Amino acid sequence: MITIFGAYNYPPIVDGIVRHHRALWAAEESGLQYKVHWMDAAKAEHREMPNRGINPFGKIPSLQDGDFKLFESGAIVNYLFEKAGKAPRDLEGRAKLAQWCYAALNTIEPLGTFEIFLWDTFWRERVGRDERRTEVVNQMRARMAELDGALGSKAYLLGDEFSAADVLMATVLTFARSEPTIYEQGPRVRAYLERCQARPGFQRAVAAQSGAPKIAA
Amino acid sequence: MITIFGAYNYPPIVDGIVRHHRALWAAEESGLQYKVHWMDAAKAEHREMPNRGINPFGKIPSLQDGDFKLFESGAIVNYLFEKAGKAPRDLEGRAKLAQWCYAALNTIEPLGTFEIFLWDTFWRERVGRDERRTEVVNQMRARMAELDGALGSKAYLLGDEFSAADVLMATVLTFARSEPTIYEQGPRVRAYLERCQARPGFQRAVAAQSGAPKIAA
Repeated sequence: MITIFGAYNYPPIVDGIVRHHRALWAAEESGLQYKVHWMDAAKAEHREMPNRGINPFGKIPSLQDGDFKLFESGAIVNYLFEKAGKAPRDLEGRAKLAQWCYAALNTIEPLGTFEIFLWDTFWRERVGRDERRTEVVNQMRARMAELDGALGSKAYLLGDEFSAADVLMATVLTFARSEPTIYEQGPRVRAYLERCQARPGFQRAVAAQSGAPKIAA
Repeated sequence: MITIFGAYNYPPIVDGIVRHHRALWAAEESGLQYKVHWMDAAKAEHREMPNRGINPFGKIPSLQDGDFKLFESGAIVNYLFEKAGKAPRDLEGRAKLAQWCYAALNTIEPLGTFEIFLWDTFWRERVGRDERRTEVVNQMRARMAELDGALGSKAYLLGDEFSAADVLMATVLTFARSEPTIYEQGPRVRAYLERCQARPGFQRAVAAQSGAPKIAA
């Protein structure tokens, strides 16, 4: 049985953004059976064992599949698709998949959508916000125009087939939900994001979150 | 023949940091034949064709192998190792490799070593530098202690075998060369970085840079 380690009781401001969502989504898309090991974020349980025994950095999500242990959401999402036989098997196909996974996690997220999220949540009162936030939003507007051109008429990043790269790209785009103007020159990116989130697998992953322990208000 | 797209004539402050280095290093480790298509960074040639035809974001490195085109350094490095038969072939082995590749590019680089590089180069005069730089350096000190524990007595991230993950981790660590105190509680990480950079493949990749066109002083 596959176990995904996720968190509950985190600040409401990160609801829908927490990185275990992408693992749950991939698990739902894979069709594999899995369960969730919920950890109390307010008690920083993810920084302690057993999660620390999987991820030396004490972050989420982590995964355990029998004796096999894995961390990094990019690796977990790919593992789930590949285990389910829903990934390219040839060298070039795998490389193209990796290309778009890394594009999401390295070209769009850092100094990009995730930074917009930080400026609009935890960093709202920081000095330098106006200058840097404007800079990164402009950068992301340009990136979305470029991504729009790369998507073209494709349904998903690899073409007709939804892949691990789409789970990563869609969740990375969601970090910038406070700044929808980034799509002004990227209407096909916005449509792509909506197409990804309309998938039943995404909806089931959102519902899976309700399996987390309830916290008294 | 494999062609790697790299840049020359960039600001000296990024010497040794430019991301084509990791592709050259992987190419040298792979033993595959390759050539470099050098682009003038000062003229932003990487933002134009032919590079833009490979990478819609106009960044380096890119790769062309016959008709096959690839961007994102993480994907390129893995492609070269895999094409050379120097990568795990089983599901779990590939997942562990991916885990460490993503750890380098997502847990160590963003809001980490690359941000230290930015604060110590292009962002030296920015407001908020003292507060944020201190924060990220402290974060990286903790990460290096965690990475030290994960390395343990291993020579490389996957064990005895040097892999694509080591090319990525070593180049990502190099971003923070201006702040060697991050290794105070990570002596095995520092030794690991030196071990990686002592490899003949690394040295040959550094030398390959000298094949770039010369710019009149």
